[in-house]
Amino acid sequence: MTVFDRLFADSTLSQLQEKDARDPLAHKRQEFKLPQGVVYLDGNSLGALPLSVPARLAHVAGEQWGEQLIRSWMANGSTSVGAEAAQDWMNLPDRVAAKIAPLIGAHAHEVAVGDSTSVNIFKLLAAALHMAPPGRRVILTEADNFPTDLYMAQGLNALLGGRYELRTVPGDELEAHLTDEVALTLLTEVDYRTGRKLDLAGLTAAARRQGILTIWDLAHSAGAFPVDLNGAGADFAVGCGYKFLNGGPGAPSFLFVAARHQDSARAFLSGWMGHADPFEMAREFTPAPGARRYVVGTPAVLSLSALDAALDVFADVDLGQLRAKSLSLTDTFIELMTPLAARHPLTLVTPHNHDERGSQVSYQHPQAREVMQQLIERGILGDFRTPDILRFGFTPLYHSHADVWRAVQGIRGVLEEAGPA
Amino acid sequence: MTVFDRLFADSTLSQLQEKDARDPLAHKRQEFKLPQGVVYLDGNSLGALPLSVPARLAHVAGEQWGEQLIRSWMANGSTSVGAEAAQDWMNLPDRVAAKIAPLIGAHAHEVAVGDSTSVNIFKLLAAALHMAPPGRRVILTEADNFPTDLYMAQGLNALLGGRYELRTVPGDELEAHLTDEVALTLLTEVDYRTGRKLDLAGLTAAARRQGILTIWDLAHSAGAFPVDLNGAGADFAVGCGYKFLNGGPGAPSFLFVAARHQDSARAFLSGWMGHADPFEMAREFTPAPGARRYVVGTPAVLSLSALDAALDVFADVDLGQLRAKSLSLTDTFIELMTPLAARHPLTLVTPHNHDERGSQVSYQHPQAREVMQQLIERGILGDFRTPDILRFGFTPLYHSHADVWRAVQGIRGVLEEAGPA
Repeated sequence: MTVFDRLFADSTLSQLQEKDARDPLAHKRQEFKLPQGVVYLDGNSLGALPLSVPARLAHVAGEQWGEQLIRSWMANGSTSVGAEAAQDWMNLPDRVAAKIAPLIGAHAHEVAVGDSTSVNIFKLLAAALHMAPPGRRVILTEADNFPTDLYMAQGLNALLGGRYELRTVPGDELEAHLTDEVALTLLTEVDYRTGRKLDLAGLTAAARRQGILTIWDLAHSAGAFPVDLNGAGADFAVGCGYKFLNGGPGAPSFLFVAARHQDSARAFLSGWMGHADPFEMAREFTPAPGARRYVVGTPAVLSLSALDAALDVFADVDLGQLRAKSLSLTDTFIELMTPLAARHPLTLVTPHNHDERGSQVSYQHPQAREVMQQLIERGILGDFRTPDILRFGFTPLYHSHADVWRAVQGIRGVLEEAGPA
Repeated sequence: MTVFDRLFADSTLSQLQEKDARDPLAHKRQEFKLPQGVVYLDGNSLGALPLSVPARLAHVAGEQWGEQLIRSWMANGSTSVGAEAAQDWMNLPDRVAAKIAPLIGAHAHEVAVGDSTSVNIFKLLAAALHMAPPGRRVILTEADNFPTDLYMAQGLNALLGGRYELRTVPGDELEAHLTDEVALTLLTEVDYRTGRKLDLAGLTAAARRQGILTIWDLAHSAGAFPVDLNGAGADFAVGCGYKFLNGGPGAPSFLFVAARHQDSARAFLSGWMGHADPFEMAREFTPAPGARRYVVGTPAVLSLSALDAALDVFADVDLGQLRAKSLSLTDTFIELMTPLAARHPLTLVTPHNHDERGSQVSYQHPQAREVMQQLIERGILGDFRTPDILRFGFTPLYHSHADVWRAVQGIRGVLEEAGPA
């Protein structure tokens, strides 16, 4: 048997199934709906549906909205509702924030939930630029940062008269660009195309030594592996509710403001739901304590309730086990793909080094768009990302090593039928 | 029989029931869930649940998200879904905008849906201030405008270094303050406390004569009566999805940018979902055509789908009939309340003049908070608004004249038990 054939032998699958049998997170898969006949490798675009969500939505719509109506804004709207689906919509953003905080190494009062990631980036950029010394005019970011991060910075800078420079540099040159011109860094920890993970702690420490504020985008981090914002001394962060947090399409985003900045950072998007006493209906904005001031308008209760229910999946999860399994899954995928990569024009762009890897694996392929289309038709749901990236996301809460094997079998089928056998 | 007794005689109720029998909108009530034993007079805070919404939510969560997963972002994700609940989440904001446009006298491409009203106010303030002549530094608003409108203007002004003045004047002095210092007006058509309706067309025309841009907040207008933004020559507007549009708690808001401004107005909150080609993943923001550029981050699909389903209620509604019924309901309420107002310290603060009335009636009462608490306990759900306002909202889609009678009976019970009989 050649190496290639051995890879797809039953014995390989058996070994992987043995790993799955020892997986301490294996039981979490039962908490998700995963369609028949699909290997879903796009949880880093849209996390799968937690089974608790439809019932919660039905309850919030039918009972809280339909029966209790406006009484649901307050805690005592009804006594007939269990604690697991409490009303008190006023405090729903805070309850969700408290569930996200331990996933990112934050205190609950440092986290606010609501609005989109893009809008939250705008809030934090505005707050951080206002705090930075006036002479520092550079917003430092990666050339390959996710586009909305760049666009929001462009828009804010235009609003401020173009007084800042958005400096985009390659990821491996970031540290060299941490100079006294730089007001802040706006960096995404895990690159959405390559899956490369930056050294959040190291870059944060280097930035602080230069008096530079850090805004971390945790879109592909939160819920994928443990993040320790306070351990790293990070200043600000945002993240996504609908990727590894499984909150549903367009779920509310979260933001983090370190406790030490909460008196000096300003919520320029100051809406009534961030007021210290919204129903006082005062004419002047007085910020609520802590990160709550960054909640702006009326919370999107339906979407927020779905996220709230989805986060309960994490209640009994050991984040160290989550990370270990994620790395085991991506290691397995890279290993199984190696002989295919040797026979086809596949270039691994995800780092081998664990410290530099998120929870996805990506390859360049000259016909990436067509290859992904064929994979999707076979039920292997990954992502094409322009210009030539095949992206495969691994979600340790609901993937097994056997899923990885099935995915590679599907990729092999597409590539071998299209190319040399 | 005294006037007072006659008012509550069965004959009065019979006359009202005859009106209800002739009501061309009476059948719309069947499309809503209205709890037993409640007269719900707070649809101007949170519209009642349209019966189509829970099924839509179940479909979007269970099928579009749970089964189709990321494929639902595109139009051809599945062929098994009927047109009434199409996928194509990418275009969902535009489909919802097209349903709102005819309610406010706008073209579909002038409307964008997403984010909260507060965030949309910020977008429009930023766009309008950027367009205004540099010498004009006054943002003119009402002293009693809804607080979040004031707060968002305060926050934006602080972000811009305090270079503007937020000038708050009484509603009846607005026209006199339309001077060449004024960059824009930020006005809510219907006052959330008094229910007084401003002359949108007249004030817009007066503002335009002075070179002043107008931003209209239609929170208590859209879905309550016909609005004609283009007929009035309005520049910008925002509105609420969860009051008279019945989109659910915290439903996405809408904004309007007149077609003539779309090339010059800038979307400073420029997110990837407002890009002309989001999946090009370009490094520079290129705005999408029309108002779509004001869609910022990933749409909140669950909340947006609820709003989408809720708006179908309006598909067969004649807005002229809607307005006529609204005025008939509020006239009836004021008439039935007149003898109570003569015996108790109730002061009507809603205008008698139809042209100056929205779809609510409010009274001042020195114990307004306690009176409303007792009303709520009896199932008459109105609102207390600080400092002394009893607010009763009327929704012509689901209220009958008999409901008005029942509401006044309840109010009578609370007041007569507490005061002179």
